[in-house]
Amino acid sequence: MPGIVKEEWRYIDENFETFVQELRSAVQKPSIAAQNVGMSEAAQYFRDLMESHGITARIMPTRGGFPCVYGEVKGKSDKTVLFYDHYDVQPPDPLDEWESEPFSGDIRDGKMYARGVSDNKGNACARIQAIGTLLKVRKELPLNVKFLIEGEEEIGSPHLAEFIEDNADLLRADFGVWESGYMNPDGRPGMYLGVKGMLYIELEAKGANKDMHSGSATHIPSAAWRLVWALASIKDANENILIPGFYDDVLPPTEREIQLLEESLGENGRGEPQDDKTEKLRAQENARALGLEEYLLGLYGTELRKRQLFSPTANICGIKTGYIGEGQKTVLPARAMAKMDFRLVPDQDPDDILAKLRKHLASRGFADIAVKVVSKDYPVKTPADLPVVDAARKAAEAVYGKPPVIAPTQGGSGPMYPFKKYLNLPMVAFGVGYWGSSNHGPNENIRLEDYRNGIKMVVQFLDELSRI
Amino acid sequence: MPGIVKEEWRYIDENFETFVQELRSAVQKPSIAAQNVGMSEAAQYFRDLMESHGITARIMPTRGGFPCVYGEVKGKSDKTVLFYDHYDVQPPDPLDEWESEPFSGDIRDGKMYARGVSDNKGNACARIQAIGTLLKVRKELPLNVKFLIEGEEEIGSPHLAEFIEDNADLLRADFGVWESGYMNPDGRPGMYLGVKGMLYIELEAKGANKDMHSGSATHIPSAAWRLVWALASIKDANENILIPGFYDDVLPPTEREIQLLEESLGENGRGEPQDDKTEKLRAQENARALGLEEYLLGLYGTELRKRQLFSPTANICGIKTGYIGEGQKTVLPARAMAKMDFRLVPDQDPDDILAKLRKHLASRGFADIAVKVVSKDYPVKTPADLPVVDAARKAAEAVYGKPPVIAPTQGGSGPMYPFKKYLNLPMVAFGVGYWGSSNHGPNENIRLEDYRNGIKMVVQFLDELSRI
Repeated sequence: MPGIVKEEWRYIDENFETFVQELRSAVQKPSIAAQNVGMSEAAQYFRDLMESHGITARIMPTRGGFPCVYGEVKGKSDKTVLFYDHYDVQPPDPLDEWESEPFSGDIRDGKMYARGVSDNKGNACARIQAIGTLLKVRKELPLNVKFLIEGEEEIGSPHLAEFIEDNADLLRADFGVWESGYMNPDGRPGMYLGVKGMLYIELEAKGANKDMHSGSATHIPSAAWRLVWALASIKDANENILIPGFYDDVLPPTEREIQLLEESLGENGRGEPQDDKTEKLRAQENARALGLEEYLLGLYGTELRKRQLFSPTANICGIKTGYIGEGQKTVLPARAMAKMDFRLVPDQDPDDILAKLRKHLASRGFADIAVKVVSKDYPVKTPADLPVVDAARKAAEAVYGKPPVIAPTQGGSGPMYPFKKYLNLPMVAFGVGYWGSSNHGPNENIRLEDYRNGIKMVVQFLDELSRI
Repeated sequence: MPGIVKEEWRYIDENFETFVQELRSAVQKPSIAAQNVGMSEAAQYFRDLMESHGITARIMPTRGGFPCVYGEVKGKSDKTVLFYDHYDVQPPDPLDEWESEPFSGDIRDGKMYARGVSDNKGNACARIQAIGTLLKVRKELPLNVKFLIEGEEEIGSPHLAEFIEDNADLLRADFGVWESGYMNPDGRPGMYLGVKGMLYIELEAKGANKDMHSGSATHIPSAAWRLVWALASIKDANENILIPGFYDDVLPPTEREIQLLEESLGENGRGEPQDDKTEKLRAQENARALGLEEYLLGLYGTELRKRQLFSPTANICGIKTGYIGEGQKTVLPARAMAKMDFRLVPDQDPDDILAKLRKHLASRGFADIAVKVVSKDYPVKTPADLPVVDAARKAAEAVYGKPPVIAPTQGGSGPMYPFKKYLNLPMVAFGVGYWGSSNHGPNENIRLEDYRNGIKMVVQFLDELSRI
């Protein structure tokens, strides 16, 4: 297939400026679910964009949350593919580290910069535009297509599971495409077949009923110290998570998963992992680009990749207590708060981990620390040997001229579980991002060439699916 | 003396409304040294207030810091008393916990509420007004009086020591009065004879060169965790400070100090400590007023008081890292910062403690944590058997009709050391605050009756000093 220029690809090239402008309009609508900013405008934009590309679309309420945008087009076969995306984005903080306004969609050096351009509006737009391309060029689709674009992914999708359960018949499909995928530094497209689960919590420690003069630290308990000690009881400096039973349900990777993982290493296509020294140097080089001497625990090569995909984490997202302004204020804080996320792997269960955390805190003398659940997600993996995975691989080879890197799962999380639970939908993930997309950080961006290829990839994937 | 109404006291009663208005004008000038807000206006106000009360006053520059206000009046004898105060205040945060605007000087229920009204403008005004009263009523002072009102106490007095050294001849005195004192809940005036030292630092941990998606917590080091572990290495949950050698230079209290400490207990004047059960119940009651079940480590009675006065501390003033806004943001923080103060007791040396802290962090694997010094103060104690202490005791008995509670030192810190080093000045501390003054916290306040008595106390103290 490489070398053959499909008519759809030519159409994409000819209309690429328009497609980029559509994406730019999408990212210029801030839609920060955590802060309830601009949500309905973004939902309407995606409904209208689908309609303008020939997709029947509507905004559907959730039970008390931000609405979903649903779209569908009938195709030739009775098979159905469902695309999952989200129109909400992370808050843009820290604002002063952005080189252009976070919601400007500034284009420079062949990249578009904006909060949400990679995660996830670029993918949502590319998929809609791919379907629009097929409808324009071919007048019909090879199979049925459905879109589900939710508005609460970045706040933990609190209403998605019940929305899927409530609308299971509407959403039923044979194949699923997950929200995102990223080009590797070696030019191979990255795909993944699962997500980590997540338990996102807030810990709150309380001391006296008001902030006190720090001279009273001799005899007044400190919320700040209570929180520090409680946190330090959760993970030690060797990265061991100390909650009893935390690792009990962690599944070891399968043979096929290890094989995929090894294929993801090396720079010469589907090569074997390089020798130890080369892998180590490469890891150090990548770490140095992030201002680090090396990765955590000196990890590199297969062990690094294994840990990224198959290890759970305990991360501190933020801590706030006491006086954090300029200069000196001698205060003993009455309140201290930490936000944490635990990334979970199959078969860890966020409710079970929560119970173990509470028990751990109580047994270590921290029963006074309040644990508030912000969100929960189950880990999910699509079996690597399903035909849908092979279809994605073939499509990627056609578009990119290189074998994809297929990760059995990924370091990030997402609400994949209800798709498995209520629809039994196998999911593959690919998209328009790249290794430098900086999701959730300042200067989030995508490369426009990846965006162009990402639209073509969707066209090609539908053709591959129609052959299953 | 109780029962006898001095003419000066009558003058104070007759002019009390004016004195209160002068104080109110003082606190309505925000003078936040940490934020360089309104400093010169406050300095001018105190110079003008002194002049209006017959004190020769001038503003004197420091070497690069906020200026000092100096005042003097010649008296009958050749002895001199020096009052030390400061016109700067702490920042008013947290603003939303104030019941009235922090710089309004709102008066309700016989109290004036304002940042700085207790610490330290109430004392500065009361002392100026007492001298003004003596000059009005008696036309001359029993001894020479000097005032030193600095502008950097709340940021650690970075220029005070060199100011005192540079102006030692000008400032020379026989007796010193320290900035503040507080009424006890039992109605006895509290005095103290020393201050703790302090080492105020900022700790900063660094991870990658930008905030990362928290999915990368498998392999990217976290500034937040590094800081938590480093902090947890400094003090354990049993309040043991773990820096090797930290306690080496801590002097045990003298016999006379223990005696003073025991006199401070009990509710019936100069009584012995109450029985164990009574002391415990009282401590619990006081703790409950602060929303606590009990004080730290269940302390009460003599042990509580000993710890307050003779134990050093390690306190966290604030921690800032990552996302601390509403809702969920899954971020792995690149930077984490903590502010800490260590309160020191004789003969601990802040430079020595700093060196031990740095060594400790390095030896525990935290050489990457940057330690920035914000301020340093040495601990100081005035010997409890000096005549100046007895003069203060007698004056308090005359004004309050009750024996004072004389603490050999106090829980708080202050820049007393250069007065000892360059002037060899013995210091006693008394003032217009009370146990509920909430220094450094929201709703800082004084009781107006304490303010009235505080002015009379200064008059009486001068008469007692003239008899030494």
